Parts: sequence; C-alpha cells; structure tokens
Amino acid sequence: MRTHYCGDINETLIDQTVTFCGWVHRRRDHGGVIFLDVRDREGLVQVVFDPDTAEAFATADSVRSEYVLQITGRVRARPAGTTNANMKTGMIEILGKEIAILNKAQTPPFPLDNYADVGEEVRLKYRYMDMRRPEMQNKLRFRSKVTSIVRRYLEANGFWDFETPILTRATPEGARDYLVPSRTHEGTFFALPQSPQLFKQLLMVSGFDRYYQIAKCFRDEDLRADRQPEFTQIDIEASFINEDDIMGLAQGMIKEIFQQELGVDLGDFPRMPFSEAMNKYGSDKPDMRIPMEIVDVAEFLQEIEFKVFAGPAKDPKGRVAALKVPGGAQLSRSQIDDYTKFVGIYGAKGLAWIKVNEIEKGVEGLQSPIIKFIGDDNTMKIMAKVGAQNGDIVFFGADRYKVVCEALGALRCKIAADLNMYTAPWAALWVVDFPMFEENDDGSLSALHHPFTAPSCTPEEMAANPTAALSRAYDMVLNGTELGGGSIRIHDQDMQAKVFDVLGISKEEQEEKFGFLLDALKFGAPPHGGLAFGLDRLIMLLTGATSIREVIAFPKTQSAACVMTQAPGEVSNAQLRELHIRLREKAKTE
Amino acid sequence: MRTHYCGDINETLIDQTVTFCGWVHRRRDHGGVIFLDVRDREGLVQVVFDPDTAEAFATADSVRSEYVLQITGRVRARPAGTTNANMKTGMIEILGKEIAILNKAQTPPFPLDNYADVGEEVRLKYRYMDMRRPEMQNKLRFRSKVTSIVRRYLEANGFWDFETPILTRATPEGARDYLVPSRTHEGTFFALPQSPQLFKQLLMVSGFDRYYQIAKCFRDEDLRADRQPEFTQIDIEASFINEDDIMGLAQGMIKEIFQQELGVDLGDFPRMPFSEAMNKYGSDKPDMRIPMEIVDVAEFLQEIEFKVFAGPAKDPKGRVAALKVPGGAQLSRSQIDDYTKFVGIYGAKGLAWIKVNEIEKGVEGLQSPIIKFIGDDNTMKIMAKVGAQNGDIVFFGADRYKVVCEALGALRCKIAADLNMYTAPWAALWVVDFPMFEENDDGSLSALHHPFTAPSCTPEEMAANPTAALSRAYDMVLNGTELGGGSIRIHDQDMQAKVFDVLGISKEEQEEKFGFLLDALKFGAPPHGGLAFGLDRLIMLLTGATSIREVIAFPKTQSAACVMTQAPGEVSNAQLRELHIRLREKAKTE
Repeated sequence: MRTHYCGDINETLIDQTVTFCGWVHRRRDHGGVIFLDVRDREGLVQVVFDPDTAEAFATADSVRSEYVLQITGRVRARPAGTTNANMKTGMIEILGKEIAILNKAQTPPFPLDNYADVGEEVRLKYRYMDMRRPEMQNKLRFRSKVTSIVRRYLEANGFWDFETPILTRATPEGARDYLVPSRTHEGTFFALPQSPQLFKQLLMVSGFDRYYQIAKCFRDEDLRADRQPEFTQIDIEASFINEDDIMGLAQGMIKEIFQQELGVDLGDFPRMPFSEAMNKYGSDKPDMRIPMEIVDVAEFLQEIEFKVFAGPAKDPKGRVAALKVPGGAQLSRSQIDDYTKFVGIYGAKGLAWIKVNEIEKGVEGLQSPIIKFIGDDNTMKIMAKVGAQNGDIVFFGADRYKVVCEALGALRCKIAADLNMYTAPWAALWVVDFPMFEENDDGSLSALHHPFTAPSCTPEEMAANPTAALSRAYDMVLNGTELGGGSIRIHDQDMQAKVFDVLGISKEEQEEKFGFLLDALKFGAPPHGGLAFGLDRLIMLLTGATSIREVIAFPKTQSAACVMTQAPGEVSNAQLRELHIRLREKAKTE
Repeated sequence: MRTHYCGDINETLIDQTVTFCGWVHRRRDHGGVIFLDVRDREGLVQVVFDPDTAEAFATADSVRSEYVLQITGRVRARPAGTTNANMKTGMIEILGKEIAILNKAQTPPFPLDNYADVGEEVRLKYRYMDMRRPEMQNKLRFRSKVTSIVRRYLEANGFWDFETPILTRATPEGARDYLVPSRTHEGTFFALPQSPQLFKQLLMVSGFDRYYQIAKCFRDEDLRADRQPEFTQIDIEASFINEDDIMGLAQGMIKEIFQQELGVDLGDFPRMPFSEAMNKYGSDKPDMRIPMEIVDVAEFLQEIEFKVFAGPAKDPKGRVAALKVPGGAQLSRSQIDDYTKFVGIYGAKGLAWIKVNEIEKGVEGLQSPIIKFIGDDNTMKIMAKVGAQNGDIVFFGADRYKVVCEALGALRCKIAADLNMYTAPWAALWVVDFPMFEENDDGSLSALHHPFTAPSCTPEEMAANPTAALSRAYDMVLNGTELGGGSIRIHDQDMQAKVFDVLGISKEEQEEKFGFLLDALKFGAPPHGGLAFGLDRLIMLLTGATSIREVIAFPKTQSAACVMTQAPGEVSNAQLRELHIRLREKAKTE
C-alpha cells in the first residue's frame, strides 16, 4: 500500500513519485493551497495540494486531524526559506497527486501535541491515542531495541532462551502472590510467579548451563511510582561460574546497551562492599554522581552530656554521622525545616546543623543551635574531620544505625537533586559483600536477598554467627537505582538446609515448600549463579522517563486497574461456581 | 572454571591441557584404569585415569553416576581401534590429571539412558533429571534457536517487540478464562489473556505499524494431547498491508526456520479455498502429503431406494462421498471394522465399502455388501469417477455435510498413517476464503475465526446473507496441522458493529465488552491485519516429538497440574480473605 514511510522520504528521492500512508498531524490552508503534515512511526512529511488537481484538492480540503490517508505524489525540494533543518524530511515536500481517505477520525479526546495539561487517567483511558505521540513511540521503540540488544548479546555468549511457567506454585520472594483458582483441582490455587528463580535453578540442575529469559513477574503489592503488578525481568543464570564471570557478563551487557543506544562508555564498574556503601552513602544503592559522603563523628561525642548525641554515640547499634553540603550555608531556615521534615520520613527525630561562615574564626565563625551542647572543642574537631569550608553546611544524624543511614542517605540524594550537584551524567557500580541475613525487630532473621543465596563462608561459620556471615550476592547500581542483582546460589543440599534452619523454617515447612528444590540438590546440582535486571526500570532510566508507566504500553494505574479495558471486572456466578469459589458476603451485597 | 565444554574437545586440541566440568554419564573399570564419560550440554568426552596419578585415580574410582566433576587433563588420540566416528569427541580421549568432585549425586530416580519404561508422571516429577537426557536437551535448544530465528527475521522486517498485559480483561476467544481475583477492587477479577488480539489491534491504532511478540496465552480447557493451560504464540500484526503482504512475510519466516534448522526448502505454499479443502480432504487443515482425495458421488445416488444414501444425496445440507484407498483391498474384515468404529467418533453411522478385485469384470469383479442397494450401473459409474483400479478399496460416507467431511477426512489421515502412504516429508499450504460465520445447532451464528476478522464483501452484502459471506482470513497448514492463522481485521467502526449485530451481540453487550475497541476504531484506525503461530506445536512438528509436553521445559499434566512443584496448591484463609473470596462449601469440608 506504500513505497515509503513518511519519515523516510528525503532529498535523495527528489522528482520521484512516492506513495505513503499515515495520519493527518496538521492541516493548514495557506495561500490557496492545502498543507498536510502526514505522520507515521518514522516521522512527519509535508504534503501540498493545489487546486490544479481538483479532485485531490477537494479531498485534502475535507480531511481533519487524525484521518488516515494514503497519498501519492512527487517529491520536490522545499522553496528557499521554508526548509526545516530540524526535521528528517525538512528539505523536501510532496506535491500531492492522489489522496484516499482510508479511515475518518472523530476529534481526538485530547490534543496529541499538547498533552501536558491532560490528566494521566485520560491518557491511560485512551492509551491508543496517547501512544501516537512521538515521545511514546520513541520510548517503546527504544524498549524494543534494548530487548533485541540484550537477546543478541546473551545468545552470542551461549545463553539459550527458556520459558518458565506462569501458572505455578507460590514462591518465597516474600511479596504477596497473585492467585489463580484451579477448576480441575477443587479448592487449590496456582500462583503467578514473583520471579522464575527456582525454575532457572532447576534448569541449571538439568545441565542447560546458560539460561536467559525476558520474563514477566507478578507482585500483588501496593504500588509506588516505579512499581507495577506485572513487571519484566531480564533473567540470567549460568553454571560452573563464579562472581567475576557473571558480573563481567552482566556489566558487558549493560555497557553494550549504553554504547549502542546512547553512545556512552560507562567504563569499568567499581565494586564497593555493602558496609562501605552504608557508611559513606547511607544506602545499598549509592548514587556516585553526588560528591558528598557521610562521615562518622561518634568518636567526638561519646563523653558529652547531650544525650541525643551521646546515647547513639555510645550504643554499638547506634550511629552519629555528619553530612557536609558544599555551598549549603545559603540554605534558608525554611529550607532546613523542609529537610528536617524530609528526614522524618526515615524515622529521624530531628536534623541538627552547623553553618560554616568564617571557619578561620573558630566556633565564632559558625552558626548553629547545637554547638553549645557539643562543646567548642568537639565542634572544631568535627569540622576538621569533615573538611568544612566557608559556605558549607554540615547536617547531623544521631539514632540507631539504620535510621541514620537511611535519613542521611536520602538527604544526600535530595539535596543533590535540589542543588543540581551531579558531577557526571552516569555512574555505575557493583555493591558486593552483603550480609546473608538481616535481623527483624523480633530478633528473628530474614534473608537479605533470598534463601538460595550462597554464603561466602562455610556452613559451620554461618551457623555459628549468622549475622556476621556475608553472602556471594552482587547488585548493579546506576545513578542511585538498583538496576539488577543476583548471587552465586547454594548448590549443596546440606548448606541449603542449614540456611533454612537459620531462617527458622521447620523441616516440615522446608519439605512442603521447597521439597522439590532440596530433592534436586541431591542429584548432582552444579555450582551456579545468576542475576536479574528490572527491564522497566532500566528503560525508564535510559529514556529519562519520570514513571515506569511511560515505558509500558498498557500499564496499570496505582490502584492496579486498567482504565482502558476496565480490568479487573465482574464475572458471573457460573464462572465462580466452576472454580469452586464464591465472593465473601460483603462483596456480594455491594 | 573450565577451558572447554566436554562436547567441544576434539582432535585439534591433541597434546593440549584442558579443564572441563560436567556430569558422570558412565563409569567403567577396565584393565586397571578408570574410564569416565563426562557429559555437559555440548556432549560427552571420555576421560581415562590410570594409577600413576594416585590421588586423582582414587577420586575417579569413588565417583558414581551423575556426580558433578571438574577435570583437568591432556587431550590425546584414542588408541587405534577404539575411536568412535559417531561421536563428536570420538577421535580423542583425555588423560585425567586432576579431578575435583563439585557435587555428589544420589542414585537417579530413573536411568537417563533407558527411560522408555519410565512413566511420564515420574519423568515430570523429576523433570530436572529428565531434561538431562540429550533428547530433551536437543529439543529445548532447538526451541531456543527457532525463537531466535523468528525474532531476527521479524526485526529485520521492521517489526518491534511489544509486551501486552497478562493481567487483563476477559477476552472473547470463546474458551474458558483463567481468573485472578483482585485484592484492591473487591469482587472483581482479572482474566489471563487467551491471546493478545485486542491489544495488538490497539497498537496498530497507535501507529506502531509492525508489532510482534512471543506471547504467553492461557485457556482453561480440558486438555488433549497437544494442548496446555498456558501455551506460547508467535504473534504478529501490521498496518497498511493486505493478505498477500502478511502471508508472504509469514511464509518467509517459516521457510527461513526450515532452511536454517533442517536444511529443507519448503517451496512456495499453494493456496486453497476452504470449500475445496473440505470437499477434497474433508478438513480445513488438509495433509497434502497424502495422495488421496474425497470424491462426491451423490449425483449417482439420488434416485435409488436405499435411503441411507438417497437421503443425504438429495438433501442440500447432506453429502455422499467416496474415498478410494489405493492398494486397500488387502484390508481385512477386522481392520475395516476398526475403521468403522473410528469414523463413529466423528458421528458417522457406518462405513460402506467396495473392494476392487478385477474391475475388468464389472461388478462381478467387485466385493461389497452394498452393491445390491446401489445398483450395478451406479456402482460402475462411481468406480469410474473415483478411478478405481484393481487392489483398491473405496469407502463411502453419507450423512450431513459436516459429518461426512470430518469422518472421511479423519479416515484419510488414519489410513495414510497406518499404510505409510506419505509422498513427501513436508507439505505446507495456505487455506483461504473461509466463511465469516458458522451456523450453530440453534440457528444462531458464530464467528469462524473471531469477530474482528474482516469480510471480503461489503457490510451490506454481509448483513443480507451472512452465511454466504467469506472472510479475509488465512490459515497456514503443515502436514495436516494448523501452524498458524490470521486475518485482515475490521478497521471500520460501522463494519465492526454490523458483525457484532450478525452475531446477535446486543448494543449494550458490545459497549460493555468491546467499548474500548469500538472507541478506538472511531479515532482513525489504519487498515491492518496479522496472524499468530502456535510455537509449541511448531516445535513439536519440527522435532518430531509426539507430545507438546516434550517441547516445554515445565509442562502441566493432562489434569492441569505440575507434579514437580505440586501446583496448584492450597492457600491460607487469610490470603483468600484479602482477595474477598472463600471456597464453596464442598471444597471447604473436604
């Protein structure tokens, strides 16, 4: 039906006759001729109809925005002064000869080139219109290109693409499962997978050696800005490899995407132990574009009277730390109040500060409500340790270790964004040496990653002092966002059972929930490991989108609904009866 | 951890030291040395340990089947007379120097190289062991390679890979949906998609022009040998194209797979109208490897007394037809009885036959219980029309059109398989010119494909005589199996509403179920069409597997369960309460 895409017609085709199809992007009536901008996925082309071709002119005169057209015409150079160097087709225009209306269009529910004022709900309801916008076209095209690069890279490295089940058994990732009632097995349910974790490990036990899948995963959680009920993972697993192998492979893949799509060389990714990330950046996903570090200052504050500082400074589980903000002395009182509220989100009970006006004058050159509690000498020692200079502000956190890390870590990112302090467009790194377990408030232990992660110590060492045990896990972090993560897995049945023991999972529960995995480990499981990347988040970062919904063709709203198809919807009682379930009373009477 | 895969070590590496990992496939103790066949996904390699390397020898002596090993050794030519030309590594062996046991293995639940006697249930329970067999490794590797070829082919043709939702609204494909209760919208349910049909059409409305996806689809139907609750579709849609464009593209894709993977040139695919397929082959997916055609013989039988033939011969909705089986006169009475039972499955009330012994003697040379009812003259005219020759048997069907087609069509395939009558290894074709609608027993109409298929006539012609209307649908058939199918879709809102009207869908129901599609068609939908291939079935055919379960890594049983993970499983009342559902009484008390 066409010889060219609209956006591909250029000056190499001058004097040739072309046929193309597309949508009316703009229609102008100017100097007795009709100008149409016709759009397809490759771009816009300008078409001119003059009254000499009477029939075509009349048709062109009748079209409206978003009509679907098929046009034949001759390519010609635009008259001098009307060319547009910013447009792929900006040097030419088409003298239209024939025009056919393939479909009419009602007035769009919102203007495609001025959607900024349109609520997201309307855009999602008419998603098929919203996706006509070049911005959306580009984002989804980009997504398709990235998945293609990923597949080619992994296939070139010997990985085979496997599909794992969507109708499966509840998995232990810890989030809430989506359930699917079984019709043929009364009273039972499938779960949609939170990840293909156990299946990919079993594929390694099968000897497939190198697995990958771009896999749909599901979590029935309350949604934040960057979460969706269903999301997509680049899932990778390999056998007979160690951390260096798999991290090198994954790093190569991300570098390849950046090189091919953005022309950016990300360089070598440094590795940072988890403990250093927490101490210096207050986060296990530090944003390395930000030239600020958190500095421990408890050593100066253990002996003072002021309990707010002295308490945590003396407590082995406490922390007192400072964050120096270069140039931050300019912050107003109300800005500081806002930051105080902000750190409150993370549990901080306040935000002490010292402004550095004239450091050469000693404490006289500082401005702060807290110096009198800290003491002059301690204050100056702290200023020296953080390297305070005139114009800086120093913030303080004093609380349990975790609260201080989270509060100052978040504050560091917030201030960097507010003051645009970034030193580079991209900064990637690996965070390694995670603890195996984290302690819950009730003293029990949870797996920091998941219970199949191998420790870097012996089973005996792990069992003797679990909270000190480190894991063979690794997370890739880009610009303060976790792009992906993984680990070397446990391939030894005894080690796996010991980890379950530490987690307080009874033998019965181990057998019931993970019996097939423990079985599989008995029959010759190879050493193996892998990782998974969040594809949606990766595309969001790469395209600079502000929400994950911008890079998904048909996303759900934050209440986990599709306003376009009106899913979820009601179903008949007959359907429920076949599935051996009924609605609870409250739902039925509504 | 290794320098080479086991299966990749060959005579080019002689005298080099290699390190490899894998499973003990076989262990033999012969002439004072230990022979190990070590296996990985690329193949087997033979390793020899002699007592000179005492420590390694002792370790090698201790290993058992399916132990996981890391071995270092020197490659050497096998002694004369012990080479194995059928084996990739058959010219060499490894003189083992170092051996490490990476993991032990219990005795496998069934022997990997002699699984024929093992029930499928056991193989599925220990699927990770079953998949160690080279046959399963090859099938799943093949599947991965085919999807890779498909992706590259489609991407080279300008198709972009899109993901469509898994949590969606009930779709109208007609099978039973899998449902997912919503936690956040009490009393409502998502449905898992039976296909991405409406989403891919909406992507065309969005102007994405060329879409593909290797998509998971779900149907909660009772399972036959080649069905699974979740299956995979190669899903394709394009805009501004006609039947020839899309059929050419799809044909090119299948030809590419056959060329690359089997070295087979499938040639050009002929096109056959649906009516011809039914008349000649009794099926809309004719197996063209079989040199037999069904022949109408009603013309000779309308005036006879014998009502079994005369009735259908005179009825416009009836059919009387013959199937000549070359060489079939050898069939015994009990074989014919079996075929009579076989056609009974398709509703045929009997299976009349005439054996051709000496055709030159006229009816005297024939053998049959029915000639006396047909009459000598009619019999000989029929023999002439079907071209009967000595040694043939001619079977007859007389019933409603559909029953005769299905019975003789199935019989044709069954006899061809029993007598191995195939004339070619592969025969592909397109079936086209399908009816838009088929009549239900109650006189109402159903869409033969789906209600979004465009008719090849005007809306007025279709509405005036719907059962005569043909559609712009096309099915690709290979060796009697439907590989895939599709159609040019309706892009005009009025046409879509008229088709819904013909199907007896009320305006209210149209609005409720398909409102968003009808809306989308109002805003400038382009002409578009596409198709979908069943990936599982395609791989099954290409690998010669006997069941779809052989080409799926983790399939469900025929009762839609996974015996390995024991899915579906029971869930807690707390989970059900969150989802606003409860089990029905019967299920609860069990």
